[in-house]
Amino acid sequence: MPDWDKARSGKLSRVQAGAHLADGKRVKAVDATALLEAVIRPGDRVCLEGDNQKQADLLAEALAAVDTSVVRDLHMVQSGIVLPEHLDVFEKGIARRLDYAYSGPQSQRIAQLLFGGKIELGAVHTYLELFARYFVDLTPQVALIAAVSADRDGNLYTGPNTEDTPVVVEATAFKNGVVIAQVNEILDRVPRVDIPGDRVDFIIQSDKPFFVEPLFTRDPAAITETQILTAMLAIKGIYAPYGVRRLNHGIGFNTAAIELLLPTYGERLGLKGKVAAQWALNPHPTLIPAIESGWVESVHCFGSEVGMDDYLRARPDIFFTGPDGSLRSNRAFSQTAGLYACDMFIGSTLQIDLQGHSSTVTANRIAGFGGAPNMGSDARGRRHPSAPWLQAGQEADPDAPAALRRGRKLVVQIGETFGDKNAPTFVEHLDALVLAEKLSLELAPIMIYGDDVSHIVTEEGIANLLLCRDADEREHAIRGVAGYTPVGRGRDKRMVERLRERRIIQRPEDLGINPLDANRNMLAARSVKDLVRWSGGLYAPPARFRNW
Amino acid sequence: MPDWDKARSGKLSRVQAGAHLADGKRVKAVDATALLEAVIRPGDRVCLEGDNQKQADLLAEALAAVDTSVVRDLHMVQSGIVLPEHLDVFEKGIARRLDYAYSGPQSQRIAQLLFGGKIELGAVHTYLELFARYFVDLTPQVALIAAVSADRDGNLYTGPNTEDTPVVVEATAFKNGVVIAQVNEILDRVPRVDIPGDRVDFIIQSDKPFFVEPLFTRDPAAITETQILTAMLAIKGIYAPYGVRRLNHGIGFNTAAIELLLPTYGERLGLKGKVAAQWALNPHPTLIPAIESGWVESVHCFGSEVGMDDYLRARPDIFFTGPDGSLRSNRAFSQTAGLYACDMFIGSTLQIDLQGHSSTVTANRIAGFGGAPNMGSDARGRRHPSAPWLQAGQEADPDAPAALRRGRKLVVQIGETFGDKNAPTFVEHLDALVLAEKLSLELAPIMIYGDDVSHIVTEEGIANLLLCRDADEREHAIRGVAGYTPVGRGRDKRMVERLRERRIIQRPEDLGINPLDANRNMLAARSVKDLVRWSGGLYAPPARFRNW
Repeated sequence: MPDWDKARSGKLSRVQAGAHLADGKRVKAVDATALLEAVIRPGDRVCLEGDNQKQADLLAEALAAVDTSVVRDLHMVQSGIVLPEHLDVFEKGIARRLDYAYSGPQSQRIAQLLFGGKIELGAVHTYLELFARYFVDLTPQVALIAAVSADRDGNLYTGPNTEDTPVVVEATAFKNGVVIAQVNEILDRVPRVDIPGDRVDFIIQSDKPFFVEPLFTRDPAAITETQILTAMLAIKGIYAPYGVRRLNHGIGFNTAAIELLLPTYGERLGLKGKVAAQWALNPHPTLIPAIESGWVESVHCFGSEVGMDDYLRARPDIFFTGPDGSLRSNRAFSQTAGLYACDMFIGSTLQIDLQGHSSTVTANRIAGFGGAPNMGSDARGRRHPSAPWLQAGQEADPDAPAALRRGRKLVVQIGETFGDKNAPTFVEHLDALVLAEKLSLELAPIMIYGDDVSHIVTEEGIANLLLCRDADEREHAIRGVAGYTPVGRGRDKRMVERLRERRIIQRPEDLGINPLDANRNMLAARSVKDLVRWSGGLYAPPARFRNW
Repeated sequence: MPDWDKARSGKLSRVQAGAHLADGKRVKAVDATALLEAVIRPGDRVCLEGDNQKQADLLAEALAAVDTSVVRDLHMVQSGIVLPEHLDVFEKGIARRLDYAYSGPQSQRIAQLLFGGKIELGAVHTYLELFARYFVDLTPQVALIAAVSADRDGNLYTGPNTEDTPVVVEATAFKNGVVIAQVNEILDRVPRVDIPGDRVDFIIQSDKPFFVEPLFTRDPAAITETQILTAMLAIKGIYAPYGVRRLNHGIGFNTAAIELLLPTYGERLGLKGKVAAQWALNPHPTLIPAIESGWVESVHCFGSEVGMDDYLRARPDIFFTGPDGSLRSNRAFSQTAGLYACDMFIGSTLQIDLQGHSSTVTANRIAGFGGAPNMGSDARGRRHPSAPWLQAGQEADPDAPAALRRGRKLVVQIGETFGDKNAPTFVEHLDALVLAEKLSLELAPIMIYGDDVSHIVTEEGIANLLLCRDADEREHAIRGVAGYTPVGRGRDKRMVERLRERRIIQRPEDLGINPLDANRNMLAARSVKDLVRWSGGLYAPPARFRNW
């Protein structure tokens, strides 16, 4: 007779092993490392919560301090590699194998550890894809999470930064895993229950609030006129003709410019109510003027954003908020919304090749994917039509019978032809390929594949890849907006002109846009202070964004 | 100064309007209709919980009884159209517009109401796609849900049939919506908290448990030898060579046969541990022998299945269960797992055309999509490799550079060449096209599009569409396994033989399978009683499946 509850009795014995350190579920911060040594077993799959925003930093430090004779060879399955401790555990041998999604600030060091063989890489994922595997083959045995407050029963209030916590806890707690939460405070009653206490085994009160990175804040003062031009092109050349109401914006100054042009340029074009109304988006401060001007009907958030909490609380008609009044974000559901309910994803990238593949890695940095590939791909399981989606599908495949023709998501790459440090955005060969070879990866880390991209926007114009009929046309559509980069200079001018006649390439003048009109006066807010003013003083930017 | 909390104050006034009927949050069942009349406003988006399994039946009846001078023109946004009341509300004018995912048992009546103009159709969705829209443009103002028990604070225990409840409540409660739950009983303390009480506004105790349909139970006694042959072909010709460990099975006798052949035929082929180990699946009773034989490592469930609760409780190493011991299912997360974490979807269909498009509608029935298109499509946002996925991608596109070549999900259609009432499975034109024309739908209701299908399995053999290089080859690969249907007889025999030489078509003999070996003795269980025996008496089949 086989034993059918090894995992459950394993969980009970882990919880018992930690019990001597606990008063009820509460464990002192000084005992955090001892708790982890008691609870975690060698080889465990451990999810240390942390994405591109919030971090369970106390628990990260505690894990990095465990005795490797007790805890070692862990398999980390987590959204983000962001804090130094996230990599310290690999250097020390506490962890060995890694499956993750995002590694922005650690992208260089993670590459070094991979080169050095200190990390055995499972795979780099999108967020939603990693969450999916939590329920199939990467279920954590231990989850180390962060919340704002807890009560004595372990009920957790995550506050506006709910983010990944619900999905991490669900996968762990319901598959005999142990859930340990760091909290900023312990209260008699939490403001709302984000995580029910019966899913939480231990609570540790931290002496400082968990860390949150203001990743989605872009200072309007840093937006250039070239970026404003790309934003005008996108609004007039894509948002307007497709009538895109449901969408997601990536991070970046180009999309921040779009947000700040809606109440000015967008208004003049008569687009209010017709485009950019329903969002899956973090609460970008640069969206405040559009919200205040009545453009935005609703926003569902992956996470929150530092300084936005009071503003979100004051706009419950727009944002998803709880009975306590604060934002309820949820990365798993917002990614699902971005995948299936949005008609457009628009974002910036570092490199685009002649097939339209794009990547944010360089030969020495692995930034991870985050959510972009999930949002920036055509959802082939989608079965509900919408006007923009049908129009894009019709452009891509005009000859198919309409009833059997699927629509297409608009996946737009926007940027200047030359990026940071004057590096060309358009390249013959992606650095991602070099990196894949160096690390013997089975797949090059492509952020968005060329066959998912519908449009590329630069200051030189818009390339509509949906209208291209073969690889050669695609290549020249890309060269035709690549400006003075070597790829751009490699164009066949007559071919590009033919594509322009077919409106596969549209120049600013083809859209009635004068590049000289692209100036900073068009921005609804030209500084962070302007954003604060738009918010009626409710937006409280982090210190680094205040210069007044 | 605009008003930013219309929705929140709207919610408060709705809750207040119902308060006189409530003692705390509790409302008597006799007052259910009065409560809905107090809380719901004309034109509201209402989610009445119900999918292909559990139903908030008391609330469905209560809604169908409201006074149309008070409640009318509702927009129903719900997973399932299953109970008669789900359509009564349209006949009576209580509801007007519909967005939904599944309508199995009402597929004929829903078609009639659509023809008659009584229903204004938004769209037919997959489950996950509809959930996604709950967070963007179809957020419910009122959710009517079902749970097993509640405490006085409104904390809900949904038990094994958690299913859609968490995602419906999250979208509604955090966007100023009203949540009303029917429960089987009110307790001092619920066994576990599936839904925190601060998301629930009213609780109504029903005098009978909410209805659950045993949709995923297939009686092994009804499995035919032809189905066993298709199952053998699938196991030896697909599961084995691709090494498919992570998968989902659709509903049907062919896949039930596969489940029952794993411990017999699969064992003989030496496949234990190598295939079919990790599942996103409802708890199919026909999976019991494979579980008991040690084939299955884990199963994450969309919902539960009638009669399986005690068995699930006794197998916590395999299933996701709560601290109370019972199953925690979750349709949103299991669909995500099926989309992104599974390497294969295999299911039956009603009709397949020469492009490989398949459909379960007939000219007079709209069954809806359920979850199949979500599971049965290539997730283009996927970035993690696995051996089966890479192999399928390589077969589909052998000439692409490996580092830039995406994998492919295995999407398998399995069935006999002639289906129910001897109707041919293979057709020149899908009835779905006729229906789309009749109803002026923008898209024909295609369950799985041909370009997502990787293999078709019939008793005549396996067609591998990944290996086809053009539309003509695809057509003949399909004709080549279509048997004596008109489509099958329309084959060019020499072309089919050439495809066979290239292993695009594989006959049973090509795989070393003798069709005469396909007999019912190969099934690990040949009756429901056998399944009960395998379960050690833990499986308690519903009365209609008991004949002893």
